[in-house]
Amino acid sequence: MGPGRQALWCEGRLMDNKNAHWRADLMAGAVVAVLLIPQSLAYAMLAGLPPQVGLYASLLPLLAYAALGSSPVLGLGPVAVLALMIAQALGSLPAGVAPEAGALVLAAEVGAVLGLAALLRLDALASLLSVPALRGFENGATLMIAAGQLPVLLGSAAAGFTLPDLLLSARHGGFNPASAAWGGAAIALLLLSRRAGSRLLARLAPLLLLVAAMLVSAFTPAAQGVAQVGALPSLALPLGLPPLDAALWLRLLPSAALVALMAFVSSLAVSESLAQRRGEKLLPAAELRGLAAANVVASLTGGMPVAGSFSRSILLHEAGSHTRWSLVFVAGFMFLAMLLLAGPLAHLPKPVLAATIVVAVLGGFTLGHYREAWRYARAEGLMMVAVTATVLLWSIAAALALGVVGSIALLIQRTARPHVARIGRVPGTQHFRNVERFAVECRPEVVGLRIDESLVFTNARGLSDVVLAHVREHRRSVGEPQRVLMLMAPVNHIDVSGLTALQELRGALAAESLRLEFSEVKGPVLDRLKAIAWLEHYDVSLYLSHHEGIQAGEHALRPSLADHDAPGQL
Amino acid sequence: MGPGRQALWCEGRLMDNKNAHWRADLMAGAVVAVLLIPQSLAYAMLAGLPPQVGLYASLLPLLAYAALGSSPVLGLGPVAVLALMIAQALGSLPAGVAPEAGALVLAAEVGAVLGLAALLRLDALASLLSVPALRGFENGATLMIAAGQLPVLLGSAAAGFTLPDLLLSARHGGFNPASAAWGGAAIALLLLSRRAGSRLLARLAPLLLLVAAMLVSAFTPAAQGVAQVGALPSLALPLGLPPLDAALWLRLLPSAALVALMAFVSSLAVSESLAQRRGEKLLPAAELRGLAAANVVASLTGGMPVAGSFSRSILLHEAGSHTRWSLVFVAGFMFLAMLLLAGPLAHLPKPVLAATIVVAVLGGFTLGHYREAWRYARAEGLMMVAVTATVLLWSIAAALALGVVGSIALLIQRTARPHVARIGRVPGTQHFRNVERFAVECRPEVVGLRIDESLVFTNARGLSDVVLAHVREHRRSVGEPQRVLMLMAPVNHIDVSGLTALQELRGALAAESLRLEFSEVKGPVLDRLKAIAWLEHYDVSLYLSHHEGIQAGEHALRPSLADHDAPGQL
Repeated sequence: MGPGRQALWCEGRLMDNKNAHWRADLMAGAVVAVLLIPQSLAYAMLAGLPPQVGLYASLLPLLAYAALGSSPVLGLGPVAVLALMIAQALGSLPAGVAPEAGALVLAAEVGAVLGLAALLRLDALASLLSVPALRGFENGATLMIAAGQLPVLLGSAAAGFTLPDLLLSARHGGFNPASAAWGGAAIALLLLSRRAGSRLLARLAPLLLLVAAMLVSAFTPAAQGVAQVGALPSLALPLGLPPLDAALWLRLLPSAALVALMAFVSSLAVSESLAQRRGEKLLPAAELRGLAAANVVASLTGGMPVAGSFSRSILLHEAGSHTRWSLVFVAGFMFLAMLLLAGPLAHLPKPVLAATIVVAVLGGFTLGHYREAWRYARAEGLMMVAVTATVLLWSIAAALALGVVGSIALLIQRTARPHVARIGRVPGTQHFRNVERFAVECRPEVVGLRIDESLVFTNARGLSDVVLAHVREHRRSVGEPQRVLMLMAPVNHIDVSGLTALQELRGALAAESLRLEFSEVKGPVLDRLKAIAWLEHYDVSLYLSHHEGIQAGEHALRPSLADHDAPGQL
Repeated sequence: MGPGRQALWCEGRLMDNKNAHWRADLMAGAVVAVLLIPQSLAYAMLAGLPPQVGLYASLLPLLAYAALGSSPVLGLGPVAVLALMIAQALGSLPAGVAPEAGALVLAAEVGAVLGLAALLRLDALASLLSVPALRGFENGATLMIAAGQLPVLLGSAAAGFTLPDLLLSARHGGFNPASAAWGGAAIALLLLSRRAGSRLLARLAPLLLLVAAMLVSAFTPAAQGVAQVGALPSLALPLGLPPLDAALWLRLLPSAALVALMAFVSSLAVSESLAQRRGEKLLPAAELRGLAAANVVASLTGGMPVAGSFSRSILLHEAGSHTRWSLVFVAGFMFLAMLLLAGPLAHLPKPVLAATIVVAVLGGFTLGHYREAWRYARAEGLMMVAVTATVLLWSIAAALALGVVGSIALLIQRTARPHVARIGRVPGTQHFRNVERFAVECRPEVVGLRIDESLVFTNARGLSDVVLAHVREHRRSVGEPQRVLMLMAPVNHIDVSGLTALQELRGALAAESLRLEFSEVKGPVLDRLKAIAWLEHYDVSLYLSHHEGIQAGEHALRPSLADHDAPGQL
């Protein structure tokens, strides 16, 4: 709490406001806890972990985020997509390692990766996942999660992390009518509660269903063979270091990096969009710190990797959360629930939990994004479909890799040639415009070009080609040039690849007896060029304005004037 | 041969030219063959393959490239960096698979990958490797190649693909004084020949050394324990399909993709730079086709993956090659050499081949690039060092991955915020300039912004932040706005992520009761927006010129004028 905030305590009206905030945060905390109780149990099951792990991950990690994070509406805790990634990561553990132990190591590593990213100020890396890649990925994960819960709903032993595996194992998986009845009824009730038109009912429904199912199941004969959650070992928060097994840490590190990327990107996507809607400023670096701390705390308190949930964040916002105290209240309610649920939880039928998962995740699935992307940019739409298919048919890791590499490949494919315009002077002015769009004057001895983009490795290779084509066009339509004067004002950055391309361009122009010259180079770009004395070394003239650069040639042709009005050559 | 070319046959002078070209190509072919003979044997050894594989890879693949490629000076054949990659790929083959068989599969897959890239027009993907990544990689490979040849030079049994492996195995590798004498003498002679000042001598030296070494070795007692190449099975070109073992193909596919990327990038780097120097036009798509065909042919004729060699390409250019016929002549000379060398090759001491490799590759090593990159852009310099270190300490594949991911990470880190300028009108004109650099007029009711870059996923996330900051600044220094008018002329492209960012920006502005409007949207960008009726759906007004857009607000305030001069709203 900063000093400014403390000063406000003295003033009555703001004090009221403050009280109103507390009340709103308390209410929002209660509303979200009602959703989080069933979700935490269900997502732990989805991750292949005992249900109490989900509860543990919904307690102290929330306090860690509240202390270090920046969003007042990030619904931190177990999330479905991460749960699927955790399940895949833990699916290949060596015999003898309990999944819970693996989850602790994974959470510690996710925390470490996010902490390292925070230290190195790598928050911009959230951009690695483009919107189509992220949406394709989330849709694929949603479908895979729903498909993976079908066997639980139907009492089948089928299991698998891909659709083919699931289908193959389904042939011998069996079927339990009682399970299917539980699952079907639960899904029907959840869908009906959404249709009832009451938002309160829709929000309470998962928790009510949970309690009702536990009661019914506890007081009816358990002999129908419906899988139940079973007795929990003890609901005391297990404090301690995650297992310090170097081989295990090394084995889980690649998965942890992917989980960390996904945790950060998905949390940031929802918290940034809510911050804009609320007119607040989000600090990506603080988000990284908050998520890192939450995951480290999860690894020390028997939890699993956590992130911000889309549905719970929206709910926090809609329920009126004002500060991160709401997360503290969520944790408090979760603690109460844990005490009350400890006994009855044993009777909860698993198909009911599976129904909660299916209804929760399918609400986030939408086909519209594919159609929109396809109509707007075919290649991006195709990539989105490919990423979704890769989740379903291969693996989460492959899908994420495809999304990152595919986005970059499309960008490179599209920006391989830098945008360069040939420009001439608007008659009677010192303004220069594209010769293809304006009636402008060009002087034969100088080709005027405007470089419309930063010169970086994605477009540097195409530079010489584009410039030489303009030179040929100038030669054809205007006359024989002696110089190529490039207006560099729109260039915000030149990386080493761009610099190399400029060197090669200078060589190619020299082969045609043409000089390369720059005008209006931006300050930061010029500073770097000066640091290695590039202009001197490659004998490239520099003019403060394009107009001066064009005039310079005039002076060169009429040396008597040169002393009178020297060009701004640096 | 096109019809234009055939028509020229009738004219005497050009006929002479044609004859001159043939003679030049023949001479260039001879010069390059002299270099290629020792290199083909040496690089086969470097790849862990029998020496004849290098010879086979230097015959028919050259004809395939000559038929389908586009550069008249690409020195195709075995190259050192690829040889190291091949060695690492074949190093983990299962027992029972001969390295030669693996090399054939690898060449077939490299050809297939390049062919697929040609079909999909993915030639722009050559940009995936930035200049610092490529240089760091090549320097690392050079050092690793030289280090790997030291045991051969010294008669030690040490071996390994990383410096630590090499050093560990060196302790028990032994040492053979006779080998060291052969190797030392060969290196000394090669270096002396370079110092002698005669270019002819320097070029002939490797071949002369080879012949001299075979003669000396054949007529002196072989008992000194110096490793020799040994009798070759038969120098008949082995035609046939590569082994069709699905498991083997699948296992080598990732390596093949990396070899293909490297083959394409390194070939294109040298052929593009030479094409610019020669004033020729290079067709990257044709290069892809040529390289694909050459590798497929290599896989059918007992060879290994091939690419364009830097040293031999420069040599072809300097020796006056005019057309791809020079490569046909190279192949012819290689065939002759094969016939003549078949017997004597058995006596060639391996340390002499190793000396050829060390002297050839170390000529390409330069520390200057690190210094230059470090001084120009510290982060890129660091990445270059990291890529080199990864080649030496870990693996080629990891180094390539680091180079690609590192380059992209740096680009994203640097371009995470799109460049947006707040602009005002230059008094008395219809021109708009940055308010921070020019004395311009701003109207309180409209924030004028110029988006200086394409909106793509690498910078889309930062858009709202930057625009909202400008709005706050406008509010502080000019007055309360009603509209945000964005001049989109510099925007060449908006991808799905950029479009999503615009939607979010519109929402964030609406939350502050501000309208979003565009002016001067480029044709191709507008076409895409129209395809999904974006402007209508999000109710974003569009003006043909920024000036009109600013005026439109004036009209809105004075409705009587609105009919008279309607804004160019689409």
